[in-house]
Amino acid sequence: MLIVKIGGNILDNPSRLHSFLVDFSKLQGPKLLVHGGGKIASAIGQRLGITPVMVEGRRVTDAETLELVTMVYGGLVNKQVVAQLQSLGCNAIGMTGADANAILATKRPVHEIDYGFAGDIAGNKNINTNALDAILLAGLTPVFAPLTHDGKGTMLNTNADTIASVLATALATKYKVTLMYCFEKKGVLSDTTDDESVIAHINSEKYKALKESGIVTAGMIPKLDNAFSALKQGVSEVLIGEAEALLSVEETDTIFAGTTITLN
Amino acid sequence: MLIVKIGGNILDNPSRLHSFLVDFSKLQGPKLLVHGGGKIASAIGQRLGITPVMVEGRRVTDAETLELVTMVYGGLVNKQVVAQLQSLGCNAIGMTGADANAILATKRPVHEIDYGFAGDIAGNKNINTNALDAILLAGLTPVFAPLTHDGKGTMLNTNADTIASVLATALATKYKVTLMYCFEKKGVLSDTTDDESVIAHINSEKYKALKESGIVTAGMIPKLDNAFSALKQGVSEVLIGEAEALLSVEETDTIFAGTTITLN
Repeated sequence: MLIVKIGGNILDNPSRLHSFLVDFSKLQGPKLLVHGGGKIASAIGQRLGITPVMVEGRRVTDAETLELVTMVYGGLVNKQVVAQLQSLGCNAIGMTGADANAILATKRPVHEIDYGFAGDIAGNKNINTNALDAILLAGLTPVFAPLTHDGKGTMLNTNADTIASVLATALATKYKVTLMYCFEKKGVLSDTTDDESVIAHINSEKYKALKESGIVTAGMIPKLDNAFSALKQGVSEVLIGEAEALLSVEETDTIFAGTTITLN
Repeated sequence: MLIVKIGGNILDNPSRLHSFLVDFSKLQGPKLLVHGGGKIASAIGQRLGITPVMVEGRRVTDAETLELVTMVYGGLVNKQVVAQLQSLGCNAIGMTGADANAILATKRPVHEIDYGFAGDIAGNKNINTNALDAILLAGLTPVFAPLTHDGKGTMLNTNADTIASVLATALATKYKVTLMYCFEKKGVLSDTTDDESVIAHINSEKYKALKESGIVTAGMIPKLDNAFSALKQGVSEVLIGEAEALLSVEETDTIFAGTTITLN
């Protein structure tokens, strides 16, 4: 099965989002979409007079912001994506981690910084794989908003990349999972000043060499570390590339235009 | 199975909502919850500078209001109810009519009044009973927000009573369905000035007599007409009463404290 994560660069651009959803709806076989938030939460927050609280470059989710992201990500963005997918013949079902107890998280503990209602997921044992499997077997396509819950009645704001990766590793116990991160670049670049310098394939050995030679930059390292962590937990391959490359993932005679990451 | 509809009188009162959800989570057997909107949409709309447009006492759903109700009903209210039910051990899954293509509606045609993005449901053939059945068989409890979609990519604002009744008649093809409308009074009253004058049972014959004698008032007639319409389409019984009477529905040795409506 294919798990695809899209972020603000697609969500904030209606025509690009629509093209992506047209492609996504064409994919055969079980699939799952995870979306991030995009700029709309900040725009609506501003109209509501909610000032973003940032600590060391990270957004703090206070009670008001939690309400904002619950309604904007879980309601507005999620349902607009679901309604569009339905119009394209894809039987989507919008979800958060609270729905079907899909993703149980814990409020991030306060050390030096209090991130508020931010949810961390302690591994894929906190994923309700049976419920997700029943939903997939019913021919439905889950569409996840970047929200989880704490099991005590409170929603939590959770990073969409993390949700995609933890769902991928949990579903890897039942499916052969490909995890694709849609990215603003065509893939992992060997030269950040040259958008065409996509590294077609990275495995553990090559990743080590790329780090040692300084070719992969600081910004890419957490993404690649997450990718290898998912691979070590059973995900078959991780793809990083532009949303426009999505359809090439399933074509057997076409090579994925972005970066394919595998363990070996 | 039991389908329960709650409205603003419960949603707007956090402690009453919590008590209701505690009771709802205790119910055995397949169940489904439909919630209305409540005052929070108007409150958030006001903060966003969205002025409610009313025509002949009915709210018109313009594009801005559609975004508002999609995020508030489909996101904020729905996820808060789902997260609370999860904390009570009820494996809830929040839905709108777009999710799993559960309820397909059509934008209300413009005759004298343009209601905007208001959705009408043309009978229970527009309900995806198979998907709902798969979700119920997976042990999940659907929680519906008062929203549907048009199948062309647009969400529609839809009356929660209508959603409850159309889901009940569609699921009556597979289940023995009891439909309960939680009401601000203890039931249908024989004397509107006496809150204790609950009519325990109404069937078709008695309803005719109650209308002829003027005992049921104009406000109750549409509700009772809808109830009989659901019964004629296969629903076993319709209950009207206070949310606090919910647990008595399943107790075999207790009579439901509100009004029970059956065909015969």
